[in-house]
Amino acid sequence: MKLTFLGTGAAIPTKYRAHPSISLKFDGEIFLFDCGENTQRQIIFTDVSPMKINNIFISHLHGDHILGLPGLLQSVAFQGRTKPLNIYGPEETAKMLENILNVGYHSIDYPINVYEISSKTPEKIISTDNYEVYSFPVVHSVPALAYVFRQVKKPRMDLEKVNKLGIEIGPDLKRLKDGFSVELNGKIITLEDVTLPPKKGICVGYSGDTIPLNEFAEFLRELKCTTLIHEATFDKTMDKNAKETLHSTVHDALNIAKLSGVNTVILTHISARYDELSAFENDIVEFKAENPDLHVLIAEDLMEYSLK
Amino acid sequence: MKLTFLGTGAAIPTKYRAHPSISLKFDGEIFLFDCGENTQRQIIFTDVSPMKINNIFISHLHGDHILGLPGLLQSVAFQGRTKPLNIYGPEETAKMLENILNVGYHSIDYPINVYEISSKTPEKIISTDNYEVYSFPVVHSVPALAYVFRQVKKPRMDLEKVNKLGIEIGPDLKRLKDGFSVELNGKIITLEDVTLPPKKGICVGYSGDTIPLNEFAEFLRELKCTTLIHEATFDKTMDKNAKETLHSTVHDALNIAKLSGVNTVILTHISARYDELSAFENDIVEFKAENPDLHVLIAEDLMEYSLK
Repeated sequence: MKLTFLGTGAAIPTKYRAHPSISLKFDGEIFLFDCGENTQRQIIFTDVSPMKINNIFISHLHGDHILGLPGLLQSVAFQGRTKPLNIYGPEETAKMLENILNVGYHSIDYPINVYEISSKTPEKIISTDNYEVYSFPVVHSVPALAYVFRQVKKPRMDLEKVNKLGIEIGPDLKRLKDGFSVELNGKIITLEDVTLPPKKGICVGYSGDTIPLNEFAEFLRELKCTTLIHEATFDKTMDKNAKETLHSTVHDALNIAKLSGVNTVILTHISARYDELSAFENDIVEFKAENPDLHVLIAEDLMEYSLK
Repeated sequence: MKLTFLGTGAAIPTKYRAHPSISLKFDGEIFLFDCGENTQRQIIFTDVSPMKINNIFISHLHGDHILGLPGLLQSVAFQGRTKPLNIYGPEETAKMLENILNVGYHSIDYPINVYEISSKTPEKIISTDNYEVYSFPVVHSVPALAYVFRQVKKPRMDLEKVNKLGIEIGPDLKRLKDGFSVELNGKIITLEDVTLPPKKGICVGYSGDTIPLNEFAEFLRELKCTTLIHEATFDKTMDKNAKETLHSTVHDALNIAKLSGVNTVILTHISARYDELSAFENDIVEFKAENPDLHVLIAEDLMEYSLK
């Protein structure tokens, strides 16, 4: 399971930071979080396969997070995609996509399914056997969402318990695995009786653009998230700017990470004003002095991060 | 007067070639020809100032030539532009722009003037004291235009003739310079009588996407163009593909250059299938064997070319 940071900049790109986009590789699929301008070309420099992108999650409809969509959608069409593509986003996402698909001449022949999330509470927007995705309403200058991707781990068969209860490998065990109970020697046995709790799966949160939200931290804690990608548009000295533009500072992001109990926080959406990151590093050193266990990374374009 | 090749790729960008865009720096202004995705970021790597872009010329409405518009228009707004911006393009350009300006939340507070050119004959679309711009309808899979930028050189005062006719530096000479005639010693004198023909100005043509068009070559010849930027999507062996997709091969482009009498042709819009350009170079060597005086360049991203 691997994250690739395709773009780690903010509103204005720089030589070193493209507009925001993050890919998550999981079980042979690519999940894309935001799709800033030039995402399709940033992908070329990585091992991300655009044709394996089946789900795109848009945090909010500011240009730096969406203007890579038309190019990406057209390019995968040009390269012969036929599979459906799902796009999730806040209110107005459908209208935004309609406008995008009306820009210029192109031929997109695969279905694009749009899911607009306007709920003011967290939503489980995808639920499968091996992963779930949640949206979480955050606070920015336009309707905005954070997302959480959570691996679903299955309970593990405890053979010791199986033997102890006298269950033989065969139809009974199969019934149990399929979630049905079994009666043996006058006793009703269920799956819980013969399994160990599931291993802790991977759980990663992505803030999108937002002010720091304790509620989001609590949500991540409930889901036992291990990793948080949080915007850190400004350093601590620009707290006023952050508040005025409804963004977060480094300190804000680290605080949310601490409250959420994740072990790793990756800072992204770095403002173009920072040619170098000494201000960021100072803030991190200061924070870690009191929170030594928190693993902090500043995202770089094309950086890969494996989730274990 | 300088060309900067911001993007020299075709439909699919590569590691080395962004989507099409060319800037022309002239008299303190930037003229942009096509604006493929990521143009705003490619600009950052050059000395082109986005705030000095007052005129954008779109050749046709395929994504690779226009998807950089929303980002560029929004970024210069974000950086405080108030000056009007003129955008020229073929039919449907206005609708394309309307859709672009409806994508996501942004605040573009400067006026954008759209000029749709649907004429089937060449048009002088801008005429000023020191330059002119022409559009020329070309043939591609959608309505498409080529453009020609031509410097206007003023006639030069011939002081020898001025003295010979007894005109003194003062009101009479001023009247002549302002284009009025003057009567002296019973003789009517006009500006033509006291000037040398204007020096040959710079004239550069840009084909956009098109099949090879002899009429375009003739038009360039009439305007005494010195430089031609022509698409060369394929090498000579892919002539069939070029015809099917209404593009040009290297050979086609060089032929147009030869017919037009330019001294320099710069090949661009190179298909992503070419990791290396030996096929292009062979075609050029072969063509130059019979046309040794033609100066041929294959455009590279961020390449600058001074027009003298």
